[in-house]
Amino acid sequence: MTDQQVTQAELRNSTAAQVRAAIRAGAYGGHTSGLAAGKLQCNLAILPEVYALDFLRFCQRNPKPCPLVAVGDTGNPMLPTLGPDIDIRTDVPRYRVFENGSFVAEPTDISDLWQPDFVTVALGCSFTFENALLRCDVPVRHMESGRNVPMFRSNLDLVPAGPFGGQMVVTMRPIPAHQVQQAYEISGRYPQAHGAPIAHGDPENLGIADLDAPDWGESVHIREGEVPVYWACGVTPQNVLLDARLPICITHSPGHMLIADVAEDAETTIYSNEENE
Amino acid sequence: MTDQQVTQAELRNSTAAQVRAAIRAGAYGGHTSGLAAGKLQCNLAILPEVYALDFLRFCQRNPKPCPLVAVGDTGNPMLPTLGPDIDIRTDVPRYRVFENGSFVAEPTDISDLWQPDFVTVALGCSFTFENALLRCDVPVRHMESGRNVPMFRSNLDLVPAGPFGGQMVVTMRPIPAHQVQQAYEISGRYPQAHGAPIAHGDPENLGIADLDAPDWGESVHIREGEVPVYWACGVTPQNVLLDARLPICITHSPGHMLIADVAEDAETTIYSNEENE
Repeated sequence: MTDQQVTQAELRNSTAAQVRAAIRAGAYGGHTSGLAAGKLQCNLAILPEVYALDFLRFCQRNPKPCPLVAVGDTGNPMLPTLGPDIDIRTDVPRYRVFENGSFVAEPTDISDLWQPDFVTVALGCSFTFENALLRCDVPVRHMESGRNVPMFRSNLDLVPAGPFGGQMVVTMRPIPAHQVQQAYEISGRYPQAHGAPIAHGDPENLGIADLDAPDWGESVHIREGEVPVYWACGVTPQNVLLDARLPICITHSPGHMLIADVAEDAETTIYSNEENE
Repeated sequence: MTDQQVTQAELRNSTAAQVRAAIRAGAYGGHTSGLAAGKLQCNLAILPEVYALDFLRFCQRNPKPCPLVAVGDTGNPMLPTLGPDIDIRTDVPRYRVFENGSFVAEPTDISDLWQPDFVTVALGCSFTFENALLRCDVPVRHMESGRNVPMFRSNLDLVPAGPFGGQMVVTMRPIPAHQVQQAYEISGRYPQAHGAPIAHGDPENLGIADLDAPDWGESVHIREGEVPVYWACGVTPQNVLLDARLPICITHSPGHMLIADVAEDAETTIYSNEENE
């Protein structure tokens, strides 16, 4: 990071390109929630090419937790299908580096780690449907409470591919009973962002023992008349990558997403298509 | 083929599994349009693993012509995410085999051609949204006329990946002007089946010189008050594969699709998800 830090508040009205420029310059290393409103934000996985075919198969087979939105060329850090000048080595605020399944570093730039066999995979994230729920006046409790969404290991088996497999991680959001159907309909419009919930109601059906003790994130209060609703979570592919104990893989740091130039409600996540339409 | 042939009429009320069983037994080798109503039908591409990563990247980058619905394990002819007993060597009515970009054979079974490095890729097809249009009383002219849909090479550049690239092939369906918006909305609900149209109106905008002279399929009459509407076409990936001149690749024969056990209007194209929901 440089001395010229900017705050999230100062970036509130910036474009996606402006936010990425601040990140690239080392001037911003914070969360991306609420930044570049209306633009697609992405989970990130960077891995050696030898594992990429199996990882793409894994994502294709598990589209709710792992909605594929971009795949880079081998060794090429640019992602032109998400925007005209996105360099994945510098344009994410904070990364996590794992070796053989163990956390080794949390840098703000991975230029010195980039290898000619690296493949970048970008996956949709829940910000997209959360924004849509809010626009339709469906409450999103963890945002109201200024907390991180509660996440749980479920008993839902993923469809395996090569070394990748395990169980789905889910998020939980309490929704007023009369708005549950609406929450399914609204989020179902965003298959590139986990889509409709995978379940609602009794947490035991998903193998979750205690909604007040999430495996990641923070617990939220479920009010009288509210139903816990569960969505597939983008932490799933991160866990799956760690469990596969690759020699090296790099992800974004939670909440520190890649911001694309693609509109989050576009029919496809391909930037060049948008221009043609 | 065996002596025990069945007709398409006899299969009209059969399930997807029953139709595939007849195909596998060599008793049916015809078109699949209208069979196993409500089930997802798929375009097919089988290619050596060394090209699979680039081909998946190509499909991901061109989701309208190439909507990925399944990817097999290397060397494994089964496609469990599309159904519990789908063997891609025997369950498609008719295949086309290409070597170095040249057509060499059109068999009804590829068991003797299967190689341990083959990867199967299944892509969505237009039958899905055509059925939806008909259910909503939007006319589909080539079906009314008992013709094959007219297809045209367009001037729309595809996003390349490795050896794969070129221009998009589009289909054209004449739609009454007052139903064009409806046609966009209805087909837009099926991103796994080419989604909303890519354009409507003047064919010259797409580099199409004469709507009465399609590059593939048959021409259809555009009536007074109708607008030509263009959709991305599943012939695109077939052309792209041929142009890449792979040592070998295998596709379905046009109209002779793979019929999956997945519902064509399911939220995802993954069979195991359906069971869980």
